[in-house]
Amino acid sequence: MTEALGTRTITAAVLVIGDEILSGRTKDKNVGHIAERLTEIGVDLREVRVVPDVEEEIVAALNGLRHRYTYVFTTGGIGPTHDDITADSVAKAFGVSIDVDPRARAMLLEYIAEKDLNEARLRMARIPAGADLIVNEVSKAPGFKIGNVIVMAGVPRIMHAMLEAVLPTLDTGPKMLSETILANAKEGDIAGPLREIAERFPGVSIGSYPFLSETGPNTNLVVRSRDPELLAKAAREVADMVAARQPAA
Amino acid sequence: MTEALGTRTITAAVLVIGDEILSGRTKDKNVGHIAERLTEIGVDLREVRVVPDVEEEIVAALNGLRHRYTYVFTTGGIGPTHDDITADSVAKAFGVSIDVDPRARAMLLEYIAEKDLNEARLRMARIPAGADLIVNEVSKAPGFKIGNVIVMAGVPRIMHAMLEAVLPTLDTGPKMLSETILANAKEGDIAGPLREIAERFPGVSIGSYPFLSETGPNTNLVVRSRDPELLAKAAREVADMVAARQPAA
Repeated sequence: MTEALGTRTITAAVLVIGDEILSGRTKDKNVGHIAERLTEIGVDLREVRVVPDVEEEIVAALNGLRHRYTYVFTTGGIGPTHDDITADSVAKAFGVSIDVDPRARAMLLEYIAEKDLNEARLRMARIPAGADLIVNEVSKAPGFKIGNVIVMAGVPRIMHAMLEAVLPTLDTGPKMLSETILANAKEGDIAGPLREIAERFPGVSIGSYPFLSETGPNTNLVVRSRDPELLAKAAREVADMVAARQPAA
Repeated sequence: MTEALGTRTITAAVLVIGDEILSGRTKDKNVGHIAERLTEIGVDLREVRVVPDVEEEIVAALNGLRHRYTYVFTTGGIGPTHDDITADSVAKAFGVSIDVDPRARAMLLEYIAEKDLNEARLRMARIPAGADLIVNEVSKAPGFKIGNVIVMAGVPRIMHAMLEAVLPTLDTGPKMLSETILANAKEGDIAGPLREIAERFPGVSIGSYPFLSETGPNTNLVVRSRDPELLAKAAREVADMVAARQPAA
């Protein structure tokens, strides 16, 4: 990627934590949502990993990702049960202690009566030392941000609330802009001229996405760039190429 | 994981290749399907990664995964356009040459007239040296298997066909069996007794999956083991724990 407009590109990775995704029992719906929101605000999602509820796997993935990208977002594993080991694993990855955080405990008490705040629920107030809390307007148990790592719930509605709470606090870069052109053609019929256009616009990414429609194979062509002028130029060439191939009306 | 029943555990990773997933434009539907099918036949999916259409990223991820798991399944990037670089990246990861494979070319000609087999489409017949082809009954362009890496299309209908073609040829282990028990409780109310059961059954994995139902928070408890007797025992204890908490009828 070129650094268009002279400002810094902000990158991110998502780390999904959970056996239930790997067994196929639960279908992940968080990655697509995070990807969309990051693209909208000008953060480039560069990698996603899914790992099981195993401490050494979480720690290794986190340490592999957090040194490489501006931000790492994790989802899952911050509930009250024995299989919720994300907070402890994050503390281990950063080499910091973890204990019940009075601020997090107070948040839980907004939702849970003191008599119901048992040992298990108190686990949800265990926060690595030095982390900032991320409010959760749905069920109060907070997420947190430590260094460049943002730790969120796995339940989509709660994850959405945490994501919206944290996004305004992040650095963002110039937004990736895109235009989509329906090719009305099979991929293989436009691949040659499309490659020629792509080669003439090295600062623009041109993707070709075939799909099976009810009337047969078709293709979406997606032109992406952070530079609006370059984007418009390349998209115009793609659109002209597509139009020149259509039978006269 | 313990090696139940004394046979080898077969593991797998999935590598999703595609900018369109990372931008959020396309929502991945392949991982959940592959995860379900692998679980059904007795292959443990242990990790998923999503990487962009960038050769060095694909090569690095592939070499990181293929030495670690029994099988690696890739999806995406094997079409006819300039952004389809999976086959070349796989060849690079294995250090082998890649060229048009006469068997693959013959498969393409079952679907595409010879006059339409242009240079771009012929790219879909480029197969790394030493790979076995995976038939694709939908659009004929084959996937392939090289070493322990299985390369499939990204379009779900085509991916499904390739997956079903290759699964019967793979080694499988004892199936992971599971029982799901609806807790009719908030996670935090059953976390304590659930942990006690989990600690008494180290060979059994007990997962707790909260969800927001229309009547409020609820929890699915999923008990998993390769040993049917152990599974039945642990699931019975979980069910008894849940039943003992319900108000008398």
